[in-house]
Amino acid sequence: MRSPASLRADFVDHVVIPTRWEDVDHYGHVNNVSYYSYFDTAVNGWLIERTGTDIRGLDAIGIVAESSCTFLGSLDFPQVVQSWLRVDRLGTSSVTYAIGLFVDADERPRALGRFVHVYVDRITRRPVPIPELIRQVVGTLVIAGRDEAGRQEQA
Amino acid sequence: MRSPASLRADFVDHVVIPTRWEDVDHYGHVNNVSYYSYFDTAVNGWLIERTGTDIRGLDAIGIVAESSCTFLGSLDFPQVVQSWLRVDRLGTSSVTYAIGLFVDADERPRALGRFVHVYVDRITRRPVPIPELIRQVVGTLVIAGRDEAGRQEQA
Amino acid sequence: MRSPASLRADFVDHVVIPTRWEDVDHYGHVNNVSYYSYFDTAVNGWLIERTGTDIRGLDAIGIVAESSCTFLGSLDFPQVVQSWLRVDRLGTSSVTYAIGLFVDADERPRALGRFVHVYVDRITRRPVPIPELIRQVVGTLVIAGRDEAGRQEQA
Amino acid sequence: MRSPASLRADFVDHVVIPTRWEDVDHYGHVNNVSYYSYFDTAVNGWLIERTGTDIRGLDAIGIVAESSCTFLGSLDFPQVVQSWLRVDRLGTSSVTYAIGLFVDADERPRALGRFVHVYVDRITRRPVPIPELIRQVVGTLVIAGRDEAGRQEQA
Repeated sequence: MRSPASLRADFVDHVVIPTRWEDVDHYGHVNNVSYYSYFDTAVNGWLIERTGTDIRGLDAIGIVAESSCTFLGSLDFPQVVQSWLRVDRLGTSSVTYAIGLFVDADERPRALGRFVHVYVDRITRRPVPIPELIRQVVGTLVIAGRDEAGRQEQA
Repeated sequence: MRSPASLRADFVDHVVIPTRWEDVDHYGHVNNVSYYSYFDTAVNGWLIERTGTDIRGLDAIGIVAESSCTFLGSLDFPQVVQSWLRVDRLGTSSVTYAIGLFVDADERPRALGRFVHVYVDRITRRPVPIPELIRQVVGTLVIAGRDEAGRQEQA
Repeated sequence: MRSPASLRADFVDHVVIPTRWEDVDHYGHVNNVSYYSYFDTAVNGWLIERTGTDIRGLDAIGIVAESSCTFLGSLDFPQVVQSWLRVDRLGTSSVTYAIGLFVDADERPRALGRFVHVYVDRITRRPVPIPELIRQVVGTLVIAGRDEAGRQEQA
Repeated sequence: MRSPASLRADFVDHVVIPTRWEDVDHYGHVNNVSYYSYFDTAVNGWLIERTGTDIRGLDAIGIVAESSCTFLGSLDFPQVVQSWLRVDRLGTSSVTYAIGLFVDADERPRALGRFVHVYVDRITRRPVPIPELIRQVVGTLVIAGRDEAGRQEQA
């Protein structure tokens, strides 16, 4: 997770997410759970905006198969989080996103995440190929030479 | 809101809801927003349990038209909240719940809520009569002589 | 709640809050609980921005005594909510906010809220006067002739 | 993550967490973000119960350094989640928990998580040794022969 590819320049595009009052927990910083809400919101919001389509209505929907986060710095309220995105693996049915959360002009991330969507049939919930509409936009988040092409397809 | 009908004995049935770590905010008590999550969870969970039916799949669904809360005492984590329910009005399309949140053996509520469900057609989202299945169980939450029968039907 | 004072022009200032993926519930619209998160975030975020002070560190903190919401229209993801604010009562210890949630250029609110902060001593949690710093900025949200001056002070 | 140590018998103790209505998202299952709320609640709730101490008031507090989840099955509302715990590494400053979410009598988990707490000074937020009080109870979650003793201490 603490790969070299962790500065803002190592990501492709971003979504802006303001923190909320209730994100802050007893310890006076944004609770770890909320970071995952930012991941979820960034990926799905970006997909809806870029495809110009309500992806929730497609026959194939992306559900989360795995996710992880390394917490490197705290977030507070009010604060505007820049959730930067990159795709590290674009498989037949799955997309592996790398996500970096940044604040202000700081080049170092407050958190680095991994977020794996597997596309499944809306009804049967069995894996199906990534819809072409989504594959096209997701492809723009792949950094040439960074696709983990050697890894075996998961789903 | 600070009606006399606010002790535990003034409610009919309850649902048990443990608080969560992330419910607690910067001030070290459960955030006001989470109280509404307890209301929502108590009403819908009770309806699903009592009807023995996944009410989300019915042709008519209950959506929230109004809600309110008077905060009388703080809640903490970990703590088990008893969410007590009563129905103060059972209309053609709407149900008005009174909710009291209690802790341990304390007879005084930590919060008193009002929560109005209006039943709407799943597709058109226009008001429709309360499904008979739901009307039957909700009727058991009405305390005789307490139904606000004089008020005009809202929805 | 369905007062005439419910159009965008009846409010004074606003905070922008994008919805999040997880705000949407089983019925495909933003869950009622999230509306209260927008209220909380708007009021506290506005106060922190306008005072230029981390109000959470003051000797007197604002805790929620009452809140309510009338739900007039649905919200979705992704969507940017404009949370408009007005102060309907500025007491010795308490501030009553009216909040209207608007989307795009629609003049009609998706929801109208009432949100009462009571200022309490950080340690004893007993009511104290509103800090002068906060009273000054909150005063700018009062619309002349709309303060409910005739009502008795609550706290 | 998909280690053999993933059945209920591979964990030591558990905390019971009912799902909430708002945990369910647009796709009709519990949203991925809520799983992390269950992890957070289970670990901290277990620590508070077992130590008989409000751990949030200690000089050293546990903050999350890393977490991850493999989603193996869906959760719904209403449902009671059993959040089973094990400690896979007990370092000087950090504790690595393995968490399995189970439902009913099913021996296979709906999700497997990893959750790393690093203890830091409440004020400086720099790493410090795990408080003895916590070390003692956490030690009971270590399964003999399963501590990843060969790995280098992280924090």
